[in-house]
Amino acid sequence: MKFSFKNDYSEGCHPNILQALLQSNLEQEAGYGEDQYSLQAKELIREKTGNKNCAIYFVSGGTQANLIVISSILKPYQAAISASTGHVLNNETGAIEATGHKVLSIETADGKLRPSDIIPVLESHTNVPHQVMPKLVYISNSTELGTIYTARDLEELSAFCKERNLYLFMDGARLGHGLTAEISDLTLEKVAQLTDVFYLGGTKNGALIGEAIVINNPILQEDFGFNIKQKGALLAKGRLLGIQFLELMKNNLYFDLARHANQQAMKIKNALQERGVAFLSVTYTNQIFPILSNELIEVLSEKFEFYVWKKIDDQYSAIRLITSWNTPDQGVNDFIQIIKTN
Amino acid sequence: MKFSFKNDYSEGCHPNILQALLQSNLEQEAGYGEDQYSLQAKELIREKTGNKNCAIYFVSGGTQANLIVISSILKPYQAAISASTGHVLNNETGAIEATGHKVLSIETADGKLRPSDIIPVLESHTNVPHQVMPKLVYISNSTELGTIYTARDLEELSAFCKERNLYLFMDGARLGHGLTAEISDLTLEKVAQLTDVFYLGGTKNGALIGEAIVINNPILQEDFGFNIKQKGALLAKGRLLGIQFLELMKNNLYFDLARHANQQAMKIKNALQERGVAFLSVTYTNQIFPILSNELIEVLSEKFEFYVWKKIDDQYSAIRLITSWNTPDQGVNDFIQIIKTN
Amino acid sequence: MKFSFKNDYSEGCHPNILQALLQSNLEQEAGYGEDQYSLQAKELIREKTGNKNCAIYFVSGGTQANLIVISSILKPYQAAISASTGHVLNNETGAIEATGHKVLSIETADGKLRPSDIIPVLESHTNVPHQVMPKLVYISNSTELGTIYTARDLEELSAFCKERNLYLFMDGARLGHGLTAEISDLTLEKVAQLTDVFYLGGTKNGALIGEAIVINNPILQEDFGFNIKQKGALLAKGRLLGIQFLELMKNNLYFDLARHANQQAMKIKNALQERGVAFLSVTYTNQIFPILSNELIEVLSEKFEFYVWKKIDDQYSAIRLITSWNTPDQGVNDFIQIIKTN
Amino acid sequence: MKFSFKNDYSEGCHPNILQALLQSNLEQEAGYGEDQYSLQAKELIREKTGNKNCAIYFVSGGTQANLIVISSILKPYQAAISASTGHVLNNETGAIEATGHKVLSIETADGKLRPSDIIPVLESHTNVPHQVMPKLVYISNSTELGTIYTARDLEELSAFCKERNLYLFMDGARLGHGLTAEISDLTLEKVAQLTDVFYLGGTKNGALIGEAIVINNPILQEDFGFNIKQKGALLAKGRLLGIQFLELMKNNLYFDLARHANQQAMKIKNALQERGVAFLSVTYTNQIFPILSNELIEVLSEKFEFYVWKKIDDQYSAIRLITSWNTPDQGVNDFIQIIKTN
Repeated sequence: MKFSFKNDYSEGCHPNILQALLQSNLEQEAGYGEDQYSLQAKELIREKTGNKNCAIYFVSGGTQANLIVISSILKPYQAAISASTGHVLNNETGAIEATGHKVLSIETADGKLRPSDIIPVLESHTNVPHQVMPKLVYISNSTELGTIYTARDLEELSAFCKERNLYLFMDGARLGHGLTAEISDLTLEKVAQLTDVFYLGGTKNGALIGEAIVINNPILQEDFGFNIKQKGALLAKGRLLGIQFLELMKNNLYFDLARHANQQAMKIKNALQERGVAFLSVTYTNQIFPILSNELIEVLSEKFEFYVWKKIDDQYSAIRLITSWNTPDQGVNDFIQIIKTN
Repeated sequence: MKFSFKNDYSEGCHPNILQALLQSNLEQEAGYGEDQYSLQAKELIREKTGNKNCAIYFVSGGTQANLIVISSILKPYQAAISASTGHVLNNETGAIEATGHKVLSIETADGKLRPSDIIPVLESHTNVPHQVMPKLVYISNSTELGTIYTARDLEELSAFCKERNLYLFMDGARLGHGLTAEISDLTLEKVAQLTDVFYLGGTKNGALIGEAIVINNPILQEDFGFNIKQKGALLAKGRLLGIQFLELMKNNLYFDLARHANQQAMKIKNALQERGVAFLSVTYTNQIFPILSNELIEVLSEKFEFYVWKKIDDQYSAIRLITSWNTPDQGVNDFIQIIKTN
Repeated sequence: MKFSFKNDYSEGCHPNILQALLQSNLEQEAGYGEDQYSLQAKELIREKTGNKNCAIYFVSGGTQANLIVISSILKPYQAAISASTGHVLNNETGAIEATGHKVLSIETADGKLRPSDIIPVLESHTNVPHQVMPKLVYISNSTELGTIYTARDLEELSAFCKERNLYLFMDGARLGHGLTAEISDLTLEKVAQLTDVFYLGGTKNGALIGEAIVINNPILQEDFGFNIKQKGALLAKGRLLGIQFLELMKNNLYFDLARHANQQAMKIKNALQERGVAFLSVTYTNQIFPILSNELIEVLSEKFEFYVWKKIDDQYSAIRLITSWNTPDQGVNDFIQIIKTN
Repeated sequence: MKFSFKNDYSEGCHPNILQALLQSNLEQEAGYGEDQYSLQAKELIREKTGNKNCAIYFVSGGTQANLIVISSILKPYQAAISASTGHVLNNETGAIEATGHKVLSIETADGKLRPSDIIPVLESHTNVPHQVMPKLVYISNSTELGTIYTARDLEELSAFCKERNLYLFMDGARLGHGLTAEISDLTLEKVAQLTDVFYLGGTKNGALIGEAIVINNPILQEDFGFNIKQKGALLAKGRLLGIQFLELMKNNLYFDLARHANQQAMKIKNALQERGVAFLSVTYTNQIFPILSNELIEVLSEKFEFYVWKKIDDQYSAIRLITSWNTPDQGVNDFIQIIKTN
């Protein structure tokens, strides 16, 4: 059986969660997220974001979160803006378009959007009313390339969005990883202050399922719950989501798990760098994209699962390695061992 | 703490499921439903339906299942037909319409659709192209009123649909309850033979979440997985759904749980009938709608939670009682005790 | 060749319009409704509505107007309310649902909505967030049954909508006919004061195509033009619409044409009443629904085209007769002659 | 008053059309495209395409045609492919996305799609079911850059689409111009043989409004009329469209008008080339994009209206000149005169 570095959702969930599910299992609770666990988890998230007035909704997964948030914010003729690597553009089977909205794509070097990336899109969409109106900026942190937004990055982007009357939405499927990267100076409080909406991803950070949508902008909070139900995302047993987020938020388990994943990736990264290996992008989170010889890739493939991401030339390709909240030292060390001896 | 008869999703899940989650928790599995548990669960369902060629997809909940199935089948100008009590009409925040399709409503006495109910709808939709084209018949079994389809009911409806070129889709959120009702002569095999699509509901029958969509009609199977993803219903950790259905299907636990729920409801029903109580509808499943005096309702409310469903007159109202896979004898007996002594 | 009373769009357009098209034909004009004719026509409509600040958009037809207005106003989870006879419910192939919105149907005796009709719908949609939120009241004037709203009708409905936070939208495909009915005390100014949006129908009142959407509520005016374009309703040669409405508005031709249509229908109605004929509904506009013997219907069918609307019993049926801006005395007199002699 | 080269829809319509409208004006005709003019016009188009079995529908404009055709063909998870200059991508306010479908963009040099352009898009959309399924190729002829498809171009593209199971849809807003370009060897018959659907544009070639959608693929013909009505595109007075296309098709007026527009553009092009002017793209249709000095542009602007299309450098810009079916020699000669003397 090979060890998998293919993604961060290969395992089940953190044991605390299963324990809590066991303990609460036969209690009767209110449905549809009105259970005590969901209420407590939301309270805890409000505390940690420093925004007592944010509205919080738990949903099952990232595509669901993205399509509900974006379709609830935009008017029919408005569009989202995303880096071309954005999950909403390439990995969601047109989920946003299926709700009626165009997603405008911007090529970037590192998967991050800066005001200077967005300005040309705004400038090329001024032929009213013949073009969509760009209205929402979608970013991911950490990004699909493993890169992160610094506090300054986000401050500048947020100020720009306010000035241009754009909503800022952060896909936080890997927000824990973004915030706990060793070089990160961004905090959950800052994210809550600087975005209109964001979500805390559970699925890729130790939950069985679950993303916590946090709506900071009061205007966007109004009647939001209808959208959750209409898109089929309101679980009857909302406790399943509430219990998970309650456990993840307690004692900052959420951040500890993400930090662990990052650290395991950094161990591999460092080992590769020591061997002079180059990378597709400079990352400090749980995704790394080393460029390896095809021979080495073949050797590694015998014991590990991972994606070959991009052909570089006839001899070299970039692979993608992802570590998780549960990646053990053993897996990491075995991988490093092979690198060192090949 | 009052005992709740409000719904069948107040508790967590059957202990076998939690046990299986625990045992498999740290295994690495493929994502998006390609894990071994999902594959095994599907194999088991195929076996039990007797249709080796059906396509099976697991999703989180009933509204999600309904909107994905209906929107995947219908062309833009086609409509669904539902009893006016249908979940898609009244309890899904316009989820079907949000995918672009009208749902035509038919008033019925018992929440069931018969050919004679549908014919007038077809006859009043012949003004081509100024009206939607009715194309899919949506039924629930057991229905939202607790009633069930017999084998003959379904055979007649299925034959009618084939003759009229309509698709037949059964919402099986409570299919277990429908099939295990004491008077039911319908089987899972028959359901698979007579419908184009149906689903096996887990959420209301002992799972944490989960409905198993079963597509019998080969034409409707094509590329169906894209719809799951596009609507945000494809769980990264699909194992969560696979493990649950594998446990539920093993040794027919699914049917045992539903039968238990039905039996607990029937105990209350019998006790009420012995006291001469009338009911809104004649049901043999886990939902009953007794008509009680407001005084008795008040007394019961002190110890139990339930919905007051409908005012009958100034003195009497119908209440809705729902039992579940986990309703203990204690709750049932306590309830009966109050009835007998009031 | 039979004379047709089937509808009010059998002929081309009022000769003044063709004359204006001829005179302006080779002038170069700005596209997309920025031509001088469209601007002048809007100015004239603003004058006649008494609302200098209304926003006006010309589109080709009624279904187009309805779907653009309703989809631009409602949020995804909000629904429209309509009488069951409403054009949006039965004659537009699900056009509103295709934009994602449910239309809630209310049975009425005469095709008109009153507060007392709407209250039960609001009261049965309080299960937040499991049901759509009713948000817009759709009415037609004159209605699909030929009936009209009096000033008092509309005042009461408008006050009710404001109180309940509902938008009021009047489909004016036959607004001219409604306002010029002999018993009407409603004026265009009143309509503009009492509705959030309405439109002036041209297609059924002497134009080749064209409806003038008038948005009175400033909130609903914002960026409305994007919706027109997105739904494919922005004509490159907008002059075609502008020229027509300019001609129709000049010297109140619009109202004269509608009054003519009404009068011709009333002549037939009076002749029928003198013969003791009963009607399906009491109308004063260009649609009448007399109940005639099947023998008489057959005789009339030899010389006239009309719809047999509804079977009353084995001997009698109601027919629908529609007169137009161009119905000549000859056609009316010939029809009356047959009635008198049969 | 300046003469306008801004577009090909500045004037009204060809006089024959107005004459036909006048002559037929007071005849009573069936509504919704069942009038004799529409039926005759369709017959004539069928004759000229050489496809007796094609289905034909008239609609008001190009965006409407595009959104109806594309949304009727694609399943919810399928996407269209377009050159980045395609009208559906940049000039329709997200009309296609508003029907739920993504449009995949391909950068091209000349606005034309070749198999080699499309292959990479197909190859990068193989991550089933996480990405949309490309299913329809959208092309324009003449293109938005004034270029055209030769017979060989279209044969190769059509063969490729069949091989890859893609539908081929040609936006013919300027099909007349494309087919009558002096270098064109493509015919209407060929277009009908090689595409699944195309349309003949009237608005930009002498009609007041109107595009004739021609569906060659029998599978795509089924029930198509419902889509027309649902999208608000079915005119009550369909005669307005029928009469126009009947006049345009008679004696090949349609092609004569387009040829005239092309010839007027070529005169200007030749005059510019004689002066050594360069162009943005090599075109033989009614759109030309000469690169002129800013001084000359300013001089021309005093007497002519046109779009400054693209800044080339500090001294030069490309302008867009469009001629129409009605562009007189005078306008062309005046323009050339200025060029020659500046």
